[in-house]
Parts: sequence; structure tokens; C-alpha cells
Amino acid sequence: MASAVGADGPSVVVVSAHAADFVWRSGGAIARAAEDGGSVTVLCLSYGERGESAALWKDEGATLESVKAARQEEAAAAADVLGADVVFFDAGDYPLRPTDELVDGIVAQFRRLQPTLLLTHAERDPYNLDHALTHEIVLRARMVAQAAGLPDRSTPPLGAAQVMAFEPHQPEQCGFVPNRFLDITAVFERKQAAMKCMGAAQGHLIDYYEDLAVRRGVQARRNGAPGSVIHAEAFQQVFPTVGATLW
Amino acid sequence: MASAVGADGPSVVVVSAHAADFVWRSGGAIARAAEDGGSVTVLCLSYGERGESAALWKDEGATLESVKAARQEEAAAAADVLGADVVFFDAGDYPLRPTDELVDGIVAQFRRLQPTLLLTHAERDPYNLDHALTHEIVLRARMVAQAAGLPDRSTPPLGAAQVMAFEPHQPEQCGFVPNRFLDITAVFERKQAAMKCMGAAQGHLIDYYEDLAVRRGVQARRNGAPGSVIHAEAFQQVFPTVGATLW
Amino acid sequence: MASAVGADGPSVVVVSAHAADFVWRSGGAIARAAEDGGSVTVLCLSYGERGESAALWKDEGATLESVKAARQEEAAAAADVLGADVVFFDAGDYPLRPTDELVDGIVAQFRRLQPTLLLTHAERDPYNLDHALTHEIVLRARMVAQAAGLPDRSTPPLGAAQVMAFEPHQPEQCGFVPNRFLDITAVFERKQAAMKCMGAAQGHLIDYYEDLAVRRGVQARRNGAPGSVIHAEAFQQVFPTVGATLW
Amino acid sequence: MASAVGADGPSVVVVSAHAADFVWRSGGAIARAAEDGGSVTVLCLSYGERGESAALWKDEGATLESVKAARQEEAAAAADVLGADVVFFDAGDYPLRPTDELVDGIVAQFRRLQPTLLLTHAERDPYNLDHALTHEIVLRARMVAQAAGLPDRSTPPLGAAQVMAFEPHQPEQCGFVPNRFLDITAVFERKQAAMKCMGAAQGHLIDYYEDLAVRRGVQARRNGAPGSVIHAEAFQQVFPTVGATLW
Amino acid sequence: MASAVGADGPSVVVVSAHAADFVWRSGGAIARAAEDGGSVTVLCLSYGERGESAALWKDEGATLESVKAARQEEAAAAADVLGADVVFFDAGDYPLRPTDELVDGIVAQFRRLQPTLLLTHAERDPYNLDHALTHEIVLRARMVAQAAGLPDRSTPPLGAAQVMAFEPHQPEQCGFVPNRFLDITAVFERKQAAMKCMGAAQGHLIDYYEDLAVRRGVQARRNGAPGSVIHAEAFQQVFPTVGATLW
Amino acid sequence: MASAVGADGPSVVVVSAHAADFVWRSGGAIARAAEDGGSVTVLCLSYGERGESAALWKDEGATLESVKAARQEEAAAAADVLGADVVFFDAGDYPLRPTDELVDGIVAQFRRLQPTLLLTHAERDPYNLDHALTHEIVLRARMVAQAAGLPDRSTPPLGAAQVMAFEPHQPEQCGFVPNRFLDITAVFERKQAAMKCMGAAQGHLIDYYEDLAVRRGVQARRNGAPGSVIHAEAFQQVFPTVGATLW
Repeated sequence: MASAVGADGPSVVVVSAHAADFVWRSGGAIARAAEDGGSVTVLCLSYGERGESAALWKDEGATLESVKAARQEEAAAAADVLGADVVFFDAGDYPLRPTDELVDGIVAQFRRLQPTLLLTHAERDPYNLDHALTHEIVLRARMVAQAAGLPDRSTPPLGAAQVMAFEPHQPEQCGFVPNRFLDITAVFERKQAAMKCMGAAQGHLIDYYEDLAVRRGVQARRNGAPGSVIHAEAFQQVFPTVGATLW
Repeated sequence: MASAVGADGPSVVVVSAHAADFVWRSGGAIARAAEDGGSVTVLCLSYGERGESAALWKDEGATLESVKAARQEEAAAAADVLGADVVFFDAGDYPLRPTDELVDGIVAQFRRLQPTLLLTHAERDPYNLDHALTHEIVLRARMVAQAAGLPDRSTPPLGAAQVMAFEPHQPEQCGFVPNRFLDITAVFERKQAAMKCMGAAQGHLIDYYEDLAVRRGVQARRNGAPGSVIHAEAFQQVFPTVGATLW
Repeated sequence: MASAVGADGPSVVVVSAHAADFVWRSGGAIARAAEDGGSVTVLCLSYGERGESAALWKDEGATLESVKAARQEEAAAAADVLGADVVFFDAGDYPLRPTDELVDGIVAQFRRLQPTLLLTHAERDPYNLDHALTHEIVLRARMVAQAAGLPDRSTPPLGAAQVMAFEPHQPEQCGFVPNRFLDITAVFERKQAAMKCMGAAQGHLIDYYEDLAVRRGVQARRNGAPGSVIHAEAFQQVFPTVGATLW
Repeated sequence: MASAVGADGPSVVVVSAHAADFVWRSGGAIARAAEDGGSVTVLCLSYGERGESAALWKDEGATLESVKAARQEEAAAAADVLGADVVFFDAGDYPLRPTDELVDGIVAQFRRLQPTLLLTHAERDPYNLDHALTHEIVLRARMVAQAAGLPDRSTPPLGAAQVMAFEPHQPEQCGFVPNRFLDITAVFERKQAAMKCMGAAQGHLIDYYEDLAVRRGVQARRNGAPGSVIHAEAFQQVFPTVGATLW
Repeated sequence: MASAVGADGPSVVVVSAHAADFVWRSGGAIARAAEDGGSVTVLCLSYGERGESAALWKDEGATLESVKAARQEEAAAAADVLGADVVFFDAGDYPLRPTDELVDGIVAQFRRLQPTLLLTHAERDPYNLDHALTHEIVLRARMVAQAAGLPDRSTPPLGAAQVMAFEPHQPEQCGFVPNRFLDITAVFERKQAAMKCMGAAQGHLIDYYEDLAVRRGVQARRNGAPGSVIHAEAFQQVFPTVGATLW
Repeated sequence: MASAVGADGPSVVVVSAHAADFVWRSGGAIARAAEDGGSVTVLCLSYGERGESAALWKDEGATLESVKAARQEEAAAAADVLGADVVFFDAGDYPLRPTDELVDGIVAQFRRLQPTLLLTHAERDPYNLDHALTHEIVLRARMVAQAAGLPDRSTPPLGAAQVMAFEPHQPEQCGFVPNRFLDITAVFERKQAAMKCMGAAQGHLIDYYEDLAVRRGVQARRNGAPGSVIHAEAFQQVFPTVGATLW
């Protein structure tokens, strides 16, 4: 699980409330960044052991530990397929709690990894407050990681990392308005392979997210992408971008 | 006033409600696009002759025609300094009216120029409904220009041109939330020269927009721009962007 | 119907889509301004003859002219009770149309009266597009009246008049968020008298607006008004205010 | 094309900017209402002849008249499959214009049909101002149709018809937030049959809207629908509903 | 305080920040649900002992315990009149704190009662953060109660319960936009009787909420309710509804 | 640090997340209130020791205590120049935590000082969650301070104090929409003197806020201020105001 900042590309950190979220919602972005020579690390705040493992709980002998172990194995396999490192915080789910320990741990990772891009959940999700809380935790940890006066002087302050929200399950109910469609056509098979790591019981979700990628691909082409763009993921930026061109 | 689509760069069209708007609000973006080898054409819907020429009306002998002529001369000079072509529609100001003739004229320019980027006013401006109306006209003309069945078959339909709003005078009152800061440091002297074309009576506006460029430059650096970025302009995109990277 | 700008107080202009709107929604504000020595002029864009005169149309012999005459008489009487002048534009209702003639007529009144405050409908009203359109017309006429280059040089340009929206019938559906409660306790009897001018058939509306005044009075006290405030009207400002104090 | 208000069910009117819009976006709702014994009438404001008939314009000999005729035939066939009447206004597209004649024609239909439910486009669509304008026209025509004083006394005023927006192509960019998922499982084959009327060249749209129905079905189940709900359409209500129960 | 899920009707749970909130804001909805054969349970998170019992604190000998006892007695009496069970959490007010114990207690009730509808405060209330916090707690507890892996396996996971916000005291300042008016005419006397339980010192609130019910009744009729609807309560749904009809 | 409520003017309390915030963002408002005979007390929740003291941390020997001491000295000097008292809570920054102790301390100050106006940060700031949290803490403390049943009976409940947000560094990204421009021309030199207390290392911020004051002054004049207004600060009110006039 050790990670080295890539010499060749950007450093991306993905913060996932539950073990599987990063796969469905940003697997394509992760694979692209990795293939482009970037370094990607996923921070899984919980295993989704209580709230997002219903299939595993149908097993009579399931325990919290057995469910967590199964979810960790799946998530680690998926991250590996996508080319990302993964760090598990085991902070508990349903509800996730924003403890000092959790925030400090994330801050330490931000200082270590020096990301220029953070991917995480949208600001709002009335169905799943763990998701909204993760967004808030990311903004808080980003702010703390930028402070000059932290006790740990061995890592430099974080710069002005961009934060982008990946797509929630019911985007309109979450105030999610995509302003960037990422072409994931070239890495879509890799995303499919990663989704398959998430367990046979979730096959319906694979279909669902395959269809979603096609739908976002259609919209990407409607917004100017070339006809070669078949699959896309949608993102919403939190901060303004800066650049030397407008387009 | 003839225009040729640049072979080397993107085609940008700027739609300006009044003769001077494009200079103050997007002079830097125009100069950058031109220096990058792009083709930039400014469509001035009116001369701002009634509502934005108070200094000229202090002259006892001023007439509508004399004011319009003076404004046209200034705007043409400023466009020339910035490296842009300019087309004047003389559609009247305070209020501007969205006549069929005006929309058809803009559509014809969009078909001729095939822009990939349209710069114009923000969607909302309670102080100046000509600005808000220009935004709406641009969206309407963009839609019409995309139609396959227009009578004029000599020009191809427009593609999915991005639309970006430039900064209004009182951004917060207009719902303007910048999501792109453009580095205009390298062309700032050119923007200053263009602003000086707009008449001695508006010297205070030059100071105002110089200060604004510095302020937006500070914010650009706060959002990740390198220290070399001194001057910036702010823009808000209307449509999602598409691309092969997230950053 | 002639009007003289008051030497002693502010000049207020109220723009009412239909003949009765100004009475129910801003009768207290009008009476207060008049009692404070201000000059108040109501511009009635239509008589509400088609859409807001159902009781009159129950009369077998009713004609458009008879209905308009009855509504004009009522509105003139109410304005008189409140201490305001009134100008009727007879521009038609359901739907009101934003013709050049109408806007020019309003501009002429704004230049003549030089208001510092404009009261009108809220920006949005999905039940009644005449109301939303009147808001837009007021902003447009305000902009035009500020222009230095209008043909009529006999009146000076309008200054930066504040615009305040009065309360729609279903405020939450119209995005109406009051930010000013006006104490109308001292003039409430006058408002009641004006409401009674609007015809016996609308007695239920009088009860409704009496209750509303009490309700807004309760809220005013909840927001810091002294216990002497019994009746209030609610308003939403469009532009920032400026002043030498914050409170 | 004659229509009779159904004695057995509600009267629904669908207002469609272009000939095909009602099929893709509300075909299921129409079929359900018809099967439930309601009367459904579609008002097609234009044929989409200029802007939404690209495939037809590839034919060398295409003329405006031939394109309009083809679109009318398709739309009439689709309406017939769905069990709805259809009225064509031929008001022109790209851009649609809100003429008095058009609004009066819609008002006349509203008075004749006395709908309790109006289905139309969303309030906002930056890609397609014809859609947003149609929403506004519907609200305006609804208001006018409610007036007691219209010249035509042969039809009674319209009541407080609900307005619901059907789903735009890029819902998040249009501010579309569904608050009602309609189960269309039982009529989905009928919708498919209607979609097939819209021309072989649009086969990709059929796939797209089939996938969308499945996606909205998944979301319906996530919001409490029983497992039997496979296909759904999404709608956003404009006005509050009223009832004797909350659920 | 024992509760049995009604065999004949829906299960409704009302979550009230302070002891009296549920009476003023949703007494009609509770009475209707009970009369319709449903089971209604009120969860009172606090007694409002510090912040909403000013009249009781005027008594020289008042103590926290005496105030809480008085408020509990009133609330229990009101719930009884309305036909609801009530559970008191005694979690403290001004400020209410979202402790694990409180959330777990609510989760246990949600699992026990299996509500299909949750009534609570609006998402936002700048005057009273206890109200906004209660909304957030309800969403969090709903999510947790849906989890398959909670330690307590004796109760099944909660389904996709709808959440509806009842009306805050100053709705526009709280972003409250009603989308459902509930006819409470038939149970209004029962609501009045419940309000009278809340203490003589709050007689002015009874008048206030009687007037509000009339006002919402007028608006219900304006939105299509029959003339028999005299009193109404306003609600705002959080999640989309699903159904087999649109109206 | 003792404070006495001024007999001659209003009581203002400014709540500042970090030691310097109140100077840059509301120094003019503080000086004006003090000069007008009001009593102003600043509550500094933290010293900004970790996150807003980068220049001090460049000193090799810097410790948390030395940085805090330096910041306290600067802030006290600036408050003195502005004519305000200051209370330091030393609650920690990056992140600030909303402990019971902190909220209780603020409540005690609100009860002691009985402010009619509270100045603090805006509701939202994605760059700096300490700022947004301070806004929330102020609303919570205001609510608690209004409670009749607090244990400390020696101070009376707080009234309905207005809350106004001062300007964040990137206003558009924080949803900050000014609705009040305060003329600070007469006290601008005093604000400059206070800013100079904040340390030589922050000279660039002085320039930045001088320019901002000029920019807001221009906007104040655009909104009706007389030509004598050169410098202004921008504020956004949280609650409705109440008064006997509209203007």
C-alpha cells in the first residue's frame, strides 16, 4: 500500500466515503490519470460495511469483521486494476463521523502526496449524509493541510489543489451540475474490469454504470467532443481553474 | 472589416452589447487568442450611443450620428490594437431590441466564422437589461446557427461552440461566479493600449479595470496559478467542457 | 391627475400591472410616504379588465369599456385616499405586452418624476406573467431613463433609483424573500379605506390583506421591531443600499 | 384531429415545441393517461423542420414543405399509437416566436379542452431556447385562459391546471429536478412503438430513451416504488399540489 | 407511550425539535393520518425547556425540571388529542446536540415503527439552528436505519420513507417552498383543541396559526382545491414521489 | 479588555474566526460605529496561529506560543486604533472546533454586551471552513443567548440582533451578494492605520484592501451614493430589517 508520487504526471487523491464508491463513480478518471503517468491514491474512509454490503449480510455467519475484510479485498483489487494505491481508514459508516483522528489522517496523506487534484463526493446528498460529510471533510482537510504552522514540519504545506465532485447516484436531487465530461473511452475496459471486482451480487450496478457511461458519452459529444468519444464520466469543479487559454 | 478564419488557431467570436464592452471585459482574452494564432471577431450590436456615451453628449453640438461615429472609431481602433476584426450591427441601445434582422445577422456571422468559443455578457444584469438580452440573443443565435434546415445552404451548421460570460461591472448582483481565470499578464500592455482608445473621458475606467486585473490575478494565484501571473480576467462557462484530462 | 414633485420628501413611483395591485400590496407604503411629505405617483399599466375583474363580468351587460371605466374609478379613488397621483396607461392585460410605446411612456414618467424609489412586482410569478413582465419593464425603463442620449433633452437622466418588490400573493412560489418590513401601523386605517374602494365584491381580499398585515407585523417584531408595530408590509430590495451606517 | 373531452378521466394537454419532443419525453405519461380513460391532446407548436430534422435534410430534394409534411406524418402516427389527439400550429422553429396568434391559438385550445394537467418543457434550457420559450408560452396561455373577460364567451375560463415539466436532454444543465417518477412499465411497449414512428434515422434516440426509462425506473424503486416498476419517466411540478393526504 | 403500527393505514413519524413544534406546524396532518386509520408517533427531541418556555420562566420558582415537566404534560395532552403516540428524548435544547445516543435512539424508533412518511422541520432556519439540525438528524437517522448491517438484527431495515418539511415560522427566510397543501378542514377543530393544550400563555400563537390555516386554505383553492377546503397546512417534500399517475 | 455598553450609540459585536479577519473585512465599519458613539467589541475565536501566520513561521525559532503572542499583540493594537474592545478565545484554528465551551463563552459575551448588530463571516466559504463555521456558531450563539431559561439569570436574554456578513476574499465563490455598501471615507485613514498594525509581512494585503475599498466606493456611487463617497465596505444582511421608511 506504499505510494510514491509519480515523477511523470499529476498527483491525484480520491476520497471515497465507502469502499466501492470510487470504482463506480470515478474509475475511468483514475485509470486515465494512471495511464497518463500520474500517481493516484484512493483514501477509503470506511468499508461501507454497515450500509452498503447488504448482499454480504445475507450470509448467516456474517460478522462486521468478515464483511469489512471482504470489502477491503474487493476494493484493493479494483484499485489495483485501475492502477491506484489505496489507503483504508476504517472510520465506520452509517454514519461516518468527522473525528479529529480521521481529519488528521487525511491531512497527513494530503501533505505526503501533495495532490494537485482531489476527487470526492458532491457537496449535497440527502439520501446519504456520509457522502456530503466526506465532501466537507475533504474541504476541511485541504484547508488544514495548507497551514504553515502544523506540528509536523516534515511535510510541506499543500498547494491550491482543485477539488472535483464525481457523480452521485441521483444527480439532480444532489444539486450536481456537471461542468466537465471526461473521455474514458480508452480506459473503459479497465473500468469494467474494476467494477467486476466488486462482487457478483452487484452485477446490476455494472450494467447501470455501463449505461451511464454511454449516456454521458452522448452528452459529451453534444457538447463538442469528437465522435470517437463513446464513454464519459461527469464531474463538477469546486474552485475556479486558471490557465493561459480559455478553451 | 473583412475576416478570415485563422488557419492556425481557434475561431473566437465576441458579442458586445455596446461598442466599448468587449474592451473592458475581455480585451485580454481577445489579445491572447490573437497572439496564439486564433481568429477573433467582435460583433458590436450597438454603439452604446444613447446610454454609454455621456461624455460625448456634453458637447453642445452632439447628434446621434456624431456620437455613433465617434464610438465606432474608438471601438474599431481598440479592436485593431487587440488583433480582432469587428462588425457593427447598429441595432440601437437603451433598449437593445431582439429583432429578427439582428438575430439573423448574428446567425450569418456564426455560420461564416464557425467559432468554437463565444464570449459575451452574463445571463443576468439588473442594472443593464441590454447585457442580459445580449446573452439570450447569443444562445438563440447559436441554436439557430446549428440548424440543418436554414434557407442559406452555403454555410455549414455551427458546431457545439462553448459560451463564456465575461465579467459584469457588479458581478455579485448579476449572479456571476467565475470558474475560469485567464492569465493575461503577457498581453496586459496591449489591453491597456486598447482601453486608451476608448476616449480620454473614460480614464477613470482604465484605472478601474487595471485594478480589477490585479485583483483577479491575486485570486488566480490563490487558485493555483504560478507567481508569474499578475493580471487576469474572469469568465464563467455556460456549457460543460469535454476533454481527455480532468486538470 | 397632474403631479408635482414634493419639495419636502422623497419621490416614489409605484408601477402596478393591473389597477388594483398597488392597493393590496403597497397601500401602506404609499400612505406612509405621502404622510412623510413625499410625492407618490402610481403608474397603472392596465385596468386588469380581462383577468382581474371577474365580479364585474358577471353583469350581463358588461363590456370591455364599462369594466375598464369601473376599475379606473376604483383605482383613482384608492390612490386619492392614499395620497398618491395615478397615471393610467391602458396597455391591456392578460397578457400585458411590452411595447415600445409603453416603455417610452414609463420612461417619460420616470424622467418627469425623478423617483429615488420604485415599487413594483417581484421578478418572478409563475401564476401571473403580467407581474413578472412588469418587473422586467421597470428595470428596462429605469435603464433607458438613465441614458444621457435620449431624444427628449427637456428632462434630466434618472439617477440610481432603488427598486423594491412588493409581496406577491403566493410569495414562496415567486422566490420572494422579504428583506424589509415596513411599519404601516400608523397608516393602516388609511390602507383599509383604500382597500374598501376596490369594490364590495372583493371583501374577502380585504380580510385576507388585513390578516397578512398582522402576520407581517408579528414577523417584524420577531426581527426587532418594537411592540408598537402591529401592521407591516414586506418588501424585497433589488439593488444594494448605501449609507453612512450599517443599521 | 377532432377531440372530445373524455367523460371517464382527466383531460391532459401536452405542449411540444417541436414535432417529436412529446414522444421521447412524455410518451409514457400520454399512454398511461389514455389507458386510464383520460383525454390527451398534443399541441405541436412547430414541426422542428429547421432544427430537428437533420436526417431529412440530407436528402438532396428536401424542401421546407417536404420536411414539414414528413414530420407531421410521423408525429400524427406516434400520437395515434399513444392514444392522443394532436393539433399542429406550424409556428416555425429555430427560433420559435411567441406571436399573439400562437398564444391566442393555444388559449383557445385550453378553453376548449379544459385540461387539469399541462405537460411541457422545462423552464430553462440553454441549449434550446425554443424549449424554454414554450414553457413561458404555456404559463402565459394558462393565465390568459383563466381570464373572465376574454372576447370569446363561448368557452368557460380555465381552472387552476397543474403544469409539469418533462425531462430535457441534459437535465442538470437545465435546472431540472424531478419530483415525480411516473411508472410507465405497463405502457412501455406502446411508447416504444410510438418512438419507432419517428423515423429510422433516429434509431439511436430510441436506444437512448429506452436506457433512460430503465435508469429512471431504478431511481423510482430507490424512492419507494415496488420492484414491479421497471420503466419510469421523470417530471417536475410547477405549482403546489393539493390533497386530502400527504402521501 | 407504547405504540402499535396500525394495520389499517400508513405509519407516520413526526420528529419535533421542541415539545410544541409538532402541534403548531403539523397538527392537522397528524389528525388526518390518525383519522384515516394510520399510526402516528411523535418524537420530541427536547422539551424546548430553555428556549421556548419563556412564559413558564416568569414564575419565580421555575426550575429546569419543573419547566420540562410542564412542557411534557402539555405535549402529551396535545398528542393524545391528535391521536398520536409520543416519545420524549430529553436531549436538551438551545442548543440541541446531535449525539450518537440521540441518533441511535431515533434509528431504533424508525426501525420499530417502519414509517413510510417522516414529517420534520425545514432544512434551513437561520433563526433557530435546532430546527435545521433536526432536519439533518432525520436524514442521517433515516440513512442509518436503512443499513443492513446494524448490530440490532431484531428489526428490519427501513424502506425509502418520504420526508416532508412542515412550515417554519418565517418560511421565506428558511427557503421553504411548499409543494403540497394538505386539506385539514375536517380535522381543524381537533387541531384547535390540541393547540389549546399548549398553555394559556400562548393564546396569541393559536390566533396566529388559525389565521395561517385560513391563508394556506385560500392558496390551496387557488391551486385547484375545491371550495370546501377552508383550512390547510403547507409541506415541502424532500424526495421525489413515485406513482402510477401524474395527478 | 473590559467593555462598557455605550450610552450614546449602538452596541456592535464582531466575531472574527482568526485574529486579523476583522481588520481587513470590517475595519471601516468598526471605526464608524465607534466614532458614532457606539460600543464595539471584537471576539477573536482564534489567533490564526496555524493557518494565517505563514510569515511568522518562517522564523526558525517560532513556536505556537510565540506566534499566538505576536498575533494577539497585532490584533489588540489594531482594535485599539479602530476604537474597539477585543476578547480572545484562543479556541484554535485550522480547524476551528465548535466546542460547547466556545459557544457558551460567546453566548456569555452576547448576554453581557447586548448587541443590536453582529458582524461576522459569510455563510459559505469553500476555501476556509473556519469562516463558514464561525457564521454558524454566531447564529447558534445568538439563538442560545435569546433563551429565557439559561442557567445564568444575571444577564437578560438577547434581543433580535441583526447579523451582517462582511466580505470574504473571493466573494463570488462564497455566494456573497452585498446588499449594503457602507461609506467608510471619513474613517479610511483609521482603517489604514489599523491594517498597518498587522505586520510588515502583509503589506500586499494592505494594498489589496485599499483597492477593494475604492472599488466598492465606485459601486456605492453607482447605487446612489453621493460623489463624496470614495471608500466603502460591502455587507450582506442575514435577517430582514424593520423600519418606518422604505428608503
